[in-house]
Amino acid sequence: MMRLYDSEPSGNCYKVRLLLSHLGLPYDPIQIDVINRQNRQSLLANKNPSARVPILELDDGRTLGESNAILLYLAENTPYLPDGRFERARVTQWLFFEQNSHEPNIAVARYWKSIVHQAERFPEQMRAKLDAGRTALQVMEHHLRPRPFLTGERYTVADISLYAYTHVAPEAGLPLDDYPSLRAWLQRVKDQPGHVSMLVGT
Amino acid sequence: MMRLYDSEPSGNCYKVRLLLSHLGLPYDPIQIDVINRQNRQSLLANKNPSARVPILELDDGRTLGESNAILLYLAENTPYLPDGRFERARVTQWLFFEQNSHEPNIAVARYWKSIVHQAERFPEQMRAKLDAGRTALQVMEHHLRPRPFLTGERYTVADISLYAYTHVAPEAGLPLDDYPSLRAWLQRVKDQPGHVSMLVGT
Repeated sequence: MMRLYDSEPSGNCYKVRLLLSHLGLPYDPIQIDVINRQNRQSLLANKNPSARVPILELDDGRTLGESNAILLYLAENTPYLPDGRFERARVTQWLFFEQNSHEPNIAVARYWKSIVHQAERFPEQMRAKLDAGRTALQVMEHHLRPRPFLTGERYTVADISLYAYTHVAPEAGLPLDDYPSLRAWLQRVKDQPGHVSMLVGT
Repeated sequence: MMRLYDSEPSGNCYKVRLLLSHLGLPYDPIQIDVINRQNRQSLLANKNPSARVPILELDDGRTLGESNAILLYLAENTPYLPDGRFERARVTQWLFFEQNSHEPNIAVARYWKSIVHQAERFPEQMRAKLDAGRTALQVMEHHLRPRPFLTGERYTVADISLYAYTHVAPEAGLPLDDYPSLRAWLQRVKDQPGHVSMLVGT
């Protein structure tokens, strides 16, 4: 059985749990602390060079890091990733947008504000991350106005990836009131068969 | 013929130029200013939702954004991207590492320090980006010690992507003296047939 080195409050880990749930694939979750990072290197560095979760361990022991790389790997030949070369490139475009323009801003601001409660230690960075996070949300709002999902008519791993930290953006200090298309999209994602919440029991 | 919305000092654009050179594919480069960003929205937003370069425009007019998505698209069925599902996932793992742990730190610090000369305006962010940039370089140094390229024996788009901002890390304030494996890898990348420099004429 596959193993997932996992952390419940991490949106990056949640993406993988959400796709695994859609696919109905069983796995063994191993909880890693995202706050106390003392044992990270010894625990994870031989499984992922950057010693970060999520890490997917296949049944033959090979391991894969980076949430969006894991999504692409698992989604191959499933309805969550198109077959066509250009359509697949369009999905990966959104996955790289997520890791470059969205996650480094919204996930980190949320971590400081709502997970470790230390936002006031980083005033200049918090301001920059909230500004850039707002820009990322505006790009999505504008793009989702005329279409149900990020790449068009179909729910893909692009939506799974961007849902993870968008639906908790208020925990970063970015309320979603001014983003009606984004809120309608969040609801469409929640309505997909096999959807699971980020935190168990919510 | 394909068009590339391009900017010469941008490492993200350089990645695409480097792969196009390896592949011997002709293209029409259109220079976009990375410093004066006033006309960005009107010029680029209908080609890439985030209005950033590089953007690849195919001969049928379809456009693709995000440097690493363009690399994956162009590399399909070429020697620069493996065929096997897991081997390809390993390449994409490094591409996401690049956009999340490497580029947001090293590229932005370089932009502030050596392109617009305003590093002193962002002291807290500069410190954080140099610390995180150093961590990314250390991950690569450690990983490259026993292997010639990031995914093993073979030069792939993972190496192309990470070369772009690693070879100019000193311009960000991150000298490479303490990274011997990284410097040997930079030389191996430069030695590949079809290699081109970032700046024309250098």
